[in-house]
Amino acid sequence: MAQRYQRVALIGLGLIASSMALAMRRAGLAGEITGTARSRETREIARELGLCDQVFDTAAEAVKGADLVVLAVPVGVMGALAQEIAPHLAEGATVTDVGSVKQAVIDAVAPHLPEHAHFIPGHPLAGTEHSGPRSGFAELFVNRWCLLVPPPGTDAEALARLRALWEDMGAHVDEMDAAHHDLVLAVTSHAPHLIAYTMVGVADDMRRVTDQEVIKYSAAGFRDFTRIAASDPTMWRDVFLTNREATLEILGRFTEELFALQRAIRTGDGDHLHAYFTRTRAIRRGIIDAGQDTDAPDFGRMMAKPKSGG
Amino acid sequence: MAQRYQRVALIGLGLIASSMALAMRRAGLAGEITGTARSRETREIARELGLCDQVFDTAAEAVKGADLVVLAVPVGVMGALAQEIAPHLAEGATVTDVGSVKQAVIDAVAPHLPEHAHFIPGHPLAGTEHSGPRSGFAELFVNRWCLLVPPPGTDAEALARLRALWEDMGAHVDEMDAAHHDLVLAVTSHAPHLIAYTMVGVADDMRRVTDQEVIKYSAAGFRDFTRIAASDPTMWRDVFLTNREATLEILGRFTEELFALQRAIRTGDGDHLHAYFTRTRAIRRGIIDAGQDTDAPDFGRMMAKPKSGG
Repeated sequence: MAQRYQRVALIGLGLIASSMALAMRRAGLAGEITGTARSRETREIARELGLCDQVFDTAAEAVKGADLVVLAVPVGVMGALAQEIAPHLAEGATVTDVGSVKQAVIDAVAPHLPEHAHFIPGHPLAGTEHSGPRSGFAELFVNRWCLLVPPPGTDAEALARLRALWEDMGAHVDEMDAAHHDLVLAVTSHAPHLIAYTMVGVADDMRRVTDQEVIKYSAAGFRDFTRIAASDPTMWRDVFLTNREATLEILGRFTEELFALQRAIRTGDGDHLHAYFTRTRAIRRGIIDAGQDTDAPDFGRMMAKPKSGG
Repeated sequence: MAQRYQRVALIGLGLIASSMALAMRRAGLAGEITGTARSRETREIARELGLCDQVFDTAAEAVKGADLVVLAVPVGVMGALAQEIAPHLAEGATVTDVGSVKQAVIDAVAPHLPEHAHFIPGHPLAGTEHSGPRSGFAELFVNRWCLLVPPPGTDAEALARLRALWEDMGAHVDEMDAAHHDLVLAVTSHAPHLIAYTMVGVADDMRRVTDQEVIKYSAAGFRDFTRIAASDPTMWRDVFLTNREATLEILGRFTEELFALQRAIRTGDGDHLHAYFTRTRAIRRGIIDAGQDTDAPDFGRMMAKPKSGG
């Protein structure tokens, strides 16, 4: 594949940025990769792993001479970071981000950037419950979507170049506006995460069900919730605080619907329950047909070996 | 492995019973396997697949001469089934079930069974979102738990034999009483399933987010919910109607907790959110350590091939 940028600066070296570094390097998409992270420990691990060609102690140094700057930090610190790097950006550099919320990032970042820079917010819909520089892998974006949210008047060439980078890392790219992005993600990601966090917290609290039992018997459905609820706490705190309106709206709808199902259980309305469960089954079929999951029984999880016996 | 029963009758030939048939046959655990199902179509598929040595049209015929009878039908029809088979049970036969709720099954089944039969309710914590006779596979129970709920005074030899059968199919076996089982499962399975059904229903309802978007972007967290919410509607209707009290209690706790987190989002209480999310992360670690899931990023799901392009 062709080189897309001469010098890419990765600010923040967690799961997404480290995966980008590995994916770009594997496909030869960047002439040089620089990086930095706020924590000294993360920078040292990145150096040890050789994630980047150069790891700098500050974002200001890392962005110098870069034609692509990737902001890969929690949404809540994007604004301060933009302010810090703005004076050091190369003429005509593209600045993108990988945050899970888009309107709040635009509001925080755009005012700081110089006229000559191209700001094209982005969001790869990919991740695992792991975080940090060691958690990255080059295949993370393969067959996953990356949503770009170009502001009106975005330079067409800069947009095409960023799109090509994501496609070369294996992603499918879509474009949409920030408000729609934030609503779609509230439905497909933010509300489900809060719900999973809540359910895992409830299980942890139940005094009559020991932790040990919750863990031993997790295969019965709860396990999928714990995976979601193991995601990075700082990242998710910021997601909820910055996509507040859309998340609360979806949670309101969720609660309304949950109450209706609870009432059906209480009153013994089996027809209501059966009709509801039949409807939700169809959505799953659509996801498998769209290639966003496999139809294999139990996703091969049965292969997990127990470390402790019965 | 040794033969555990001379003749096993499987009543209902869905995911669990068909997996038992395959697992028992592979390990030579049953001299003969008979089966039946209410629907003619299911019986025909079972015959075509050769799941059992003999597929009968009625449960009364299927149980004749069996030393183990497995009730593998939705919880709501267990009582009527017990009444139907009771007069035909062999002297000293063991009757077990695989229902997800235990007290309701005991209340429905026990009164019908003759004195000479050993009734030992059971519940293998294993399954996929698929159902029907074609969905079974011999490895379904490997490394999974099977909970047995022997009533006080259960014959020790009959219990040991049933336990050995499950262990020979690869399961770990635990024993507990029915009330505790129903509460533990309300936490680890029943409430999570209802929550997943609810969230998938909400997504389906959102008019400003198209079905197509929900499906395309499901990898962001929602996908795990859809898998859970694709489970058999009849089975789950019966679970909620028969484990009503415990499920409603957990859902009440869940709602309380969800409201507290919603308030934290609304008021911008990031510390509360961060502390909560940090606590839930630890549970996940426990599940991986206990061997009930793998630590592999994304469970290899990234290997799914999309059937439609970008």
